[in-house]
Amino acid sequence: MALVVQKYGGTSVGTVEKIKAVAKKVIDYHKEGNKMVVVLSAMAGRTDGLIRLARQICSDPDPRELDVLLATGEQESVALFSMAVKDMGLEAQSMLGFQVAIHTDHIFGRAKINQVETERIMKALNDNKIVAIAGFQGLDAYGDITTLGRGGSDTTAVALAAALKADVCEIFKDDVEGVYTTNPEVCPKAKKLEMISYEEMLEMASLGAKVLEIRAVEFAMKYNVPVYVRSTFSDKRGTMVVAETKDMEKVLVSGVAYSKNESRVTIRKVPDRPGVASRIFEPIFESGIVVDMIVQNTSEDGLTDITFTVPKADFYRTMKLVTEVAQEIGAEKVMGDEDIAKVSIVGVGMRTHAGVANRMFAALAAENINIMMISTSEIKISVVIQEKYLELAVRILHKAFGLDDETRTEE
Amino acid sequence: MALVVQKYGGTSVGTVEKIKAVAKKVIDYHKEGNKMVVVLSAMAGRTDGLIRLARQICSDPDPRELDVLLATGEQESVALFSMAVKDMGLEAQSMLGFQVAIHTDHIFGRAKINQVETERIMKALNDNKIVAIAGFQGLDAYGDITTLGRGGSDTTAVALAAALKADVCEIFKDDVEGVYTTNPEVCPKAKKLEMISYEEMLEMASLGAKVLEIRAVEFAMKYNVPVYVRSTFSDKRGTMVVAETKDMEKVLVSGVAYSKNESRVTIRKVPDRPGVASRIFEPIFESGIVVDMIVQNTSEDGLTDITFTVPKADFYRTMKLVTEVAQEIGAEKVMGDEDIAKVSIVGVGMRTHAGVANRMFAALAAENINIMMISTSEIKISVVIQEKYLELAVRILHKAFGLDDETRTEE
Repeated sequence: MALVVQKYGGTSVGTVEKIKAVAKKVIDYHKEGNKMVVVLSAMAGRTDGLIRLARQICSDPDPRELDVLLATGEQESVALFSMAVKDMGLEAQSMLGFQVAIHTDHIFGRAKINQVETERIMKALNDNKIVAIAGFQGLDAYGDITTLGRGGSDTTAVALAAALKADVCEIFKDDVEGVYTTNPEVCPKAKKLEMISYEEMLEMASLGAKVLEIRAVEFAMKYNVPVYVRSTFSDKRGTMVVAETKDMEKVLVSGVAYSKNESRVTIRKVPDRPGVASRIFEPIFESGIVVDMIVQNTSEDGLTDITFTVPKADFYRTMKLVTEVAQEIGAEKVMGDEDIAKVSIVGVGMRTHAGVANRMFAALAAENINIMMISTSEIKISVVIQEKYLELAVRILHKAFGLDDETRTEE
Repeated sequence: MALVVQKYGGTSVGTVEKIKAVAKKVIDYHKEGNKMVVVLSAMAGRTDGLIRLARQICSDPDPRELDVLLATGEQESVALFSMAVKDMGLEAQSMLGFQVAIHTDHIFGRAKINQVETERIMKALNDNKIVAIAGFQGLDAYGDITTLGRGGSDTTAVALAAALKADVCEIFKDDVEGVYTTNPEVCPKAKKLEMISYEEMLEMASLGAKVLEIRAVEFAMKYNVPVYVRSTFSDKRGTMVVAETKDMEKVLVSGVAYSKNESRVTIRKVPDRPGVASRIFEPIFESGIVVDMIVQNTSEDGLTDITFTVPKADFYRTMKLVTEVAQEIGAEKVMGDEDIAKVSIVGVGMRTHAGVANRMFAALAAENINIMMISTSEIKISVVIQEKYLELAVRILHKAFGLDDETRTEE
């Protein structure tokens, strides 16, 4: 008998009929002898609807009260789900963040889970109940309702699985059947991975493969929770996200990730003095803008070029800040480019294999794709290229590292 | 500086614009130096919508989970209201049933309030915040969400006012400006009462003048909370519901109440033996049907007639039960009548004045309205008449007891 935590997203519980279908599915697991804890998101569209309602009150709703409002979405889902289970003849009980309790910090709208109590859930499970837990919400030390931010229900599920020492945390997706070597829409030969390590998944998630919320993966890694990503609507095998194994290192590259949400800023002929970099980046960091890659050329005649990337949404703000500083420090000029993208190869195998970067650069060069910037970590290599070449680059790298599913023909 | 509890119903907060208007109104009270606690219902239509949603899951939703679902309605209102207040520059804080906390018994769907904590509210008030409290909901001893039943927000407001020792509990109505001597739709000369006693209000409420929830009035009476019923949309003077004063006894009759929700069952020629009444009524009581008036004629030749009233909704069920018993005990026949109504005069003045009943009967007789049944209490006299005469009877009694507003002409 296993203790299973399952999480279903908004589309999976988007209508009354779908809620009933999920209830039936969970009951089947229960009948197989599993103790079932089910984490639900708000019905599809509900959270957006509530945000629209709040915006009708004022353009910038109070964060505490917005969380009180948004928390109703998941409350609705768990109540309806529990009714459905009970109507099908089994025992069920919904629990909200405060009832579990899921203790968080005080940051409304993107609270972090500090601690999850298990007593009430374990009691309900021992009473043979299916337990339905509202995702996305918690309670801070003042007794205020908090929410965990978009995708927070994944984190709720993993945190619960960790606290309950569950055998597995199953994340049911309504759009994909698991984690793929890359986005199948860009590369039709993308393969579903049977297994991926937490660290690889983190790199994939942060690079734009929106299968699992980053914080959920971090939580799973920290507490070593096996996470099984699979489809709500089929019984096909999904992807296990687990701790790294020796076997995994045999595979050089596990996936190709990418992001179009990048823009590039270059400051030409910056006087190369101590403190210049901090002069440039301080106002950017202070504005809360996240700088991703930074490249500084070797100095020539006491002058250097500094290039870095920021999210597209922050491009104009960054250009304004940098232009002011550039004048003050006497740099020649500031150039910006929004038509760029980042493509990355990810794999724990890189730790033990040499020449991966070279094979990547060669593959891109063979198609005349120019590399503008490079950054590396232990298990990933990212390059910035012109945006228009992005899809081509993904397919080239996918093939170059032997990821193509040869049973499929290009569509 | 007064501590004021105000309650606004669903229509008063039925749209974003109305929520903003209520926020502005409350802020004005706050600026006059009052400490403000505001109890809100769900936005108009929301509770019905949630019930419809639950019914799509199953015809008879689990009561515990239905309360979890319904509680989202008031949660939404208090969050939006608090956002509106903060957007207008004042401090506000929403509190749900579990946050206050409002402790209730375990009866889902119609829980009774046992105790209201005041610490968190008083702290917020002392921090100069406007406190918005979700009506209709509480928390039972197991930490489960309960709801108080329809009209429960009135009870929440009065219970809070009692616990906080508020100077006044103001119930804002969206359809009336206060408590009237009778329904102005039936009798255009109905007057708004400046003052009414708790006991009179209880009789008026239970007889069908749906201004205040009965339980709210009982609560107010028990804890001697002055309740001020007034209009959301005008500043006109409303009605104070307070403890009985000597002055009130000078008025013979305070109001004329009525109910169309009655039906009558008569059993003819019942053998008049000990135990017969219990044989007749036991199955009715056991079915949960509420019997209102019971009349038994004096026995003649060892046979008697028994007549009683039940709610119209229970008429056919009652007829079936009674017909079975009538055969068993050898009564002659069972007759039923759905076309009846009850009209009542209410007033604490009756305690000290004689001849009130007689004046009532004479007034009805003068218009040839036949009285079918009579029942009395210390402060009320009710008669059953044919339903078609109801409106006429209300107007006759209203005039006969000097309640007509002579400044108005009949419309």
